[in-house]
Amino acid sequence: MKKFNEWFHNILEEAEIIDSRYPIKGMSVWLPRGFQIRKNMLNALEDLLNEEHEEVLFPMLIPQSELAKEAIHVKGFEEEVYWVTKGGLRDLNEQLALRPTSETSMYPMFSLWVRSHMDLPIKVYQTVNTFRYETKHTRPLIRVREITTFNETHTVHATPEEAEEEVQKGIEIYKTLFDELGIPYTISKRPEWDKFPGSKYTMAFDMIMPDGKTLQIGTVHNLGTTFAKTFDITYEDENSEHQYAHQVCYGLSDRVIAALIAAHGDEKGLQLPPIVAPEQVIIIPIIFKENQDVVLNFTDKLESILKDAGIRTKQDKRDLRPGKKYYEWENRGVPIRIEVGPRDIENGNIVLNRRDTGDKEFIEYNEDTIVSIIKDTLDDITQKMQEKSTQWQKDKTYHVDKLENVGKTINKKGGIVTFNWCGNTECGKQIEEEFNIDILGTQPAEVEGNCLHCDNKANHKVLVSKTY
Amino acid sequence: MKKFNEWFHNILEEAEIIDSRYPIKGMSVWLPRGFQIRKNMLNALEDLLNEEHEEVLFPMLIPQSELAKEAIHVKGFEEEVYWVTKGGLRDLNEQLALRPTSETSMYPMFSLWVRSHMDLPIKVYQTVNTFRYETKHTRPLIRVREITTFNETHTVHATPEEAEEEVQKGIEIYKTLFDELGIPYTISKRPEWDKFPGSKYTMAFDMIMPDGKTLQIGTVHNLGTTFAKTFDITYEDENSEHQYAHQVCYGLSDRVIAALIAAHGDEKGLQLPPIVAPEQVIIIPIIFKENQDVVLNFTDKLESILKDAGIRTKQDKRDLRPGKKYYEWENRGVPIRIEVGPRDIENGNIVLNRRDTGDKEFIEYNEDTIVSIIKDTLDDITQKMQEKSTQWQKDKTYHVDKLENVGKTINKKGGIVTFNWCGNTECGKQIEEEFNIDILGTQPAEVEGNCLHCDNKANHKVLVSKTY
Repeated sequence: MKKFNEWFHNILEEAEIIDSRYPIKGMSVWLPRGFQIRKNMLNALEDLLNEEHEEVLFPMLIPQSELAKEAIHVKGFEEEVYWVTKGGLRDLNEQLALRPTSETSMYPMFSLWVRSHMDLPIKVYQTVNTFRYETKHTRPLIRVREITTFNETHTVHATPEEAEEEVQKGIEIYKTLFDELGIPYTISKRPEWDKFPGSKYTMAFDMIMPDGKTLQIGTVHNLGTTFAKTFDITYEDENSEHQYAHQVCYGLSDRVIAALIAAHGDEKGLQLPPIVAPEQVIIIPIIFKENQDVVLNFTDKLESILKDAGIRTKQDKRDLRPGKKYYEWENRGVPIRIEVGPRDIENGNIVLNRRDTGDKEFIEYNEDTIVSIIKDTLDDITQKMQEKSTQWQKDKTYHVDKLENVGKTINKKGGIVTFNWCGNTECGKQIEEEFNIDILGTQPAEVEGNCLHCDNKANHKVLVSKTY
Repeated sequence: MKKFNEWFHNILEEAEIIDSRYPIKGMSVWLPRGFQIRKNMLNALEDLLNEEHEEVLFPMLIPQSELAKEAIHVKGFEEEVYWVTKGGLRDLNEQLALRPTSETSMYPMFSLWVRSHMDLPIKVYQTVNTFRYETKHTRPLIRVREITTFNETHTVHATPEEAEEEVQKGIEIYKTLFDELGIPYTISKRPEWDKFPGSKYTMAFDMIMPDGKTLQIGTVHNLGTTFAKTFDITYEDENSEHQYAHQVCYGLSDRVIAALIAAHGDEKGLQLPPIVAPEQVIIIPIIFKENQDVVLNFTDKLESILKDAGIRTKQDKRDLRPGKKYYEWENRGVPIRIEVGPRDIENGNIVLNRRDTGDKEFIEYNEDTIVSIIKDTLDDITQKMQEKSTQWQKDKTYHVDKLENVGKTINKKGGIVTFNWCGNTECGKQIEEEFNIDILGTQPAEVEGNCLHCDNKANHKVLVSKTY
């Protein structure tokens, strides 16, 4: 897949995910098939979040005075905020921001909600649209002006230890989700100059895209007490003393959909992990005039057996030749295709095709076993898709021990390059500029020797790449 | 419930539905319990819509040029539209509207999607936030500036007959939903001066609230070809001739939640229809120190049996006295409360309390029958709640045959008053002004005699009320 950008643009249209012809740049329409994929992804995520978190919904508009309260935070967003200045034909007394992210809409309310240590922890999340006035080139699902699918979790804790635990919890949730979706990732701690504005530190998930650049697909922020101090989120502890609360937030977006499309797609089109596929199984009856009823009775029964077992199943009875149907459902990425013709029924077989491997298998048909065969196959597809994409990310990650190989490797092979680094901000920014790359972050590692760039003592394993 | 306004305001807070202290007037936060009710309501609605419609998601911002295209439509909204005029620190080239409703964001895309009669019908819906710059007094869920839960269906058809059918379909869907929620309603055809701006006609659902005023809870609009002409939505028919498409849209909002709260609430607090209750059953173990294990083993088993059967069940094991728990869960409106103490277990009983009737019943406990007993009880609660509220609406609807009784009846009894009317706009507006009421609309009926107001020939049965 050499021309990834073109492929990506085309597949969104062909597989009916997104229509990007909306008359505002960077804003697109979710089409029915895309919407189902999005919904299934969110269901998978919410299943994980709901174990300890509760869903809420905050207003979309934020008063300028609230947004401006946390100075470092607003500085990080002020060039990207859309402002509502008029209501009807009148000017508003105070400008209202379309939320770029929701800290400043949520935390004034948290301040009201938190009184005593009994009120803690608070663990909530919401899925909303957020807005960024992007001046760079926009790209559907990846760099947009309306992020239509921003899932953000916000928590408040009594102690820094609990906040640390929540950071780990957030990382675990995202790891589980990305594993289920077969999205490969590398986790690192973002450098000081690229952490979330106002946070103590940011942990980030990056995926290596088919063109070798990395895409940030999820972030987890330890906010410390910065926002608690700004928004006066305090609790009375057991000794009746007022303490600032410790906060964590984490989020992901439409980019997760972009990532799963990019991770698995191929020349045949989309390839959907079973957990998000609108149809996990497509049944194609091979119909000839004379024995139409025999085949359709069989496939109708099969369809209802699979549906009753909770497998998302569709039957394509359209009057088209089978080859055209195969092509279309492969393009749409359905994990399993079942073909049933009159001879198959005579032989007691069905034909099972896997989208991931392209394998075609004759299965002895038995109403009692078909559900478990399909479920096992779906599980195997999930696992194989994950293994394949994890291997890809691993293969595209290179450790180098000569400075000259940093730029060379990235320019030639793409992916992520790691090397020993001092951890110094000035040195880091020089590296970014010299090689025209980004420092993704650092990973804990036992590092010996000196910084590849400045030759001071190395303390970190640093990860660099070209980024989206 | 004499002071409905005060009761309504308090219950939203007490039952943890909404927090209305957000620092922008008319915008509120959905709390976890409220969010679950909202989600369950939307699930019920989507189950009905999904039979023939597909979910989509359109951008929230609309270019001024698109919003302005349909002149009558924009006139209906221009005083209420919020405008984004700035991106970052710059002025935008073109102002962007926060959608007040989505016709003008969707229909330019429909124009691209519809080419031939083969592309029709289109039947889509979305659940989004919309915005109105309300200058009147705001009230949570009822009159707000951010409508957080706007579910809108939009369809495109080849013929006016199909559009008519879709209007009926929309009415049927809303009737089914409101019946499931036990929300009473009266359907009428809005008068010319109160129909949806740009539509051919509007059918509306109104509920009589506890204070006697009516609340509009859903509308279905036949748009004819007005928008198709404005947005150039045409198709090539079988004779290769270009035809304008016929359109229908219908929607409902947060007000459905307000309606179900108002329809069933009482002095004890909220009363939730089983279909939306976050907990359909609350189990209260009556624990004494010495036999704690016996009781908890029993209630844990009961909880898991009910949950496995798909009944939303929660057990309240908090260290509080039972009376306080009863009070709290009644206030929150849980349909069924089950109490289990050590003596009940000895006697092979459980105690089942219904929130709707207040009935308390000892049930002989049997693991094999408990699920069907609970399910039957939930069904019976649904039916009784619906019957009761339907009866209320019926009892509060009065037919009068003297003009003087129109105002008298409404001022004394509230509710809906019906009488014979000529159908003339000027006459209708005079009625509204003279009695300080609103004409809700007309219903098909065989009418004899003359208009109660102008004495011309009566053609309609008209419905009037004080409205929210």
